[in-house]
Amino acid sequence: MDQQECIFCSIVAGSGPAHVVYEDENVVAFLDIRPIKRGHTLVIPRTHAQDLSELPQQLGAQVFSAAQIIARAVRDERIGAEGANIVINDGEAAFQTVPHTHIHVIPRRHGDKMRLAGGLLTRRASALPETAALLRAAINEAAGTQD
Amino acid sequence: MDQQECIFCSIVAGSGPAHVVYEDENVVAFLDIRPIKRGHTLVIPRTHAQDLSELPQQLGAQVFSAAQIIARAVRDERIGAEGANIVINDGEAAFQTVPHTHIHVIPRRHGDKMRLAGGLLTRRASALPETAALLRAAINEAAGTQD
Ligand SMILES: [Zn+2]
Ligand SMILES: [Zn+2]
Repeated sequence: MDQQECIFCSIVAGSGPAHVVYEDENVVAFLDIRPIKRGHTLVIPRTHAQDLSELPQQLGAQVFSAAQIIARAVRDERIGAEGANIVINDGEAAFQTVPHTHIHVIPRRHGDKMRLAGGLLTRRASALPETAALLRAAINEAAGTQD
Repeated sequence: MDQQECIFCSIVAGSGPAHVVYEDENVVAFLDIRPIKRGHTLVIPRTHAQDLSELPQQLGAQVFSAAQIIARAVRDERIGAEGANIVINDGEAAFQTVPHTHIHVIPRRHGDKMRLAGGLLTRRASALPETAALLRAAINEAAGTQD
């Protein structure tokens, strides 16, 4: 895929719509438009890299750090998760669908049900703007208390 | 769980058996003893941290960098993967079973089948020593060519 046609690059550029919950100099995080669970977030590098083999190691570490911040923040009472699955589908063989590398952060609660089979197929819509606002607030508060 | 009873801490200490494929000052990576796919590797920090909320951000970045190295290395012809799933089950609610945070690197090929439902339940044994030797060789070679 040409980088100019990349939907995640268009989100980074501000020309594609997204419910952004976190951003810094190197990373943007936004809600998955087909969330598996409420608060399901995608974390991407601002620079286009198709997969982990194209992603510079330092930038990978920065993307992961943002995912770690979000995994903590979804445990805030406003989102109410009790854990999270952090998932990278690296390559088409691993069910990667958008060729701009991304980390899924999927909030989990005890007893909920989830199927990850088939490339994260089971998805429902939900109230994205409201969820984004709650998650942004949780992340911003947590940002003051990181180690 | 008491840290002294932690099976992953015992692997770090050298008192627990493991097929180590990568290690550095901060990180150890070894084959999962119940691999979902051949070359299924777990990457852990040497320092005990139950989950991502306990893992210092810098150490998290180091663990992720090691996972990224391994995700690249499994594409070597000796392992023959065409992609990989990178997964952290963070918290019991997310199916974390060993309370020492770890990243799964699961090699994938086009057309293979995998169920991640139920906490990575579908697992078969395979030739761990031989696989570890092949993967170590691929990682060591790749280490000379990283960006
Ligand atoms: Zn892109
Ligand atoms: Zn431990």
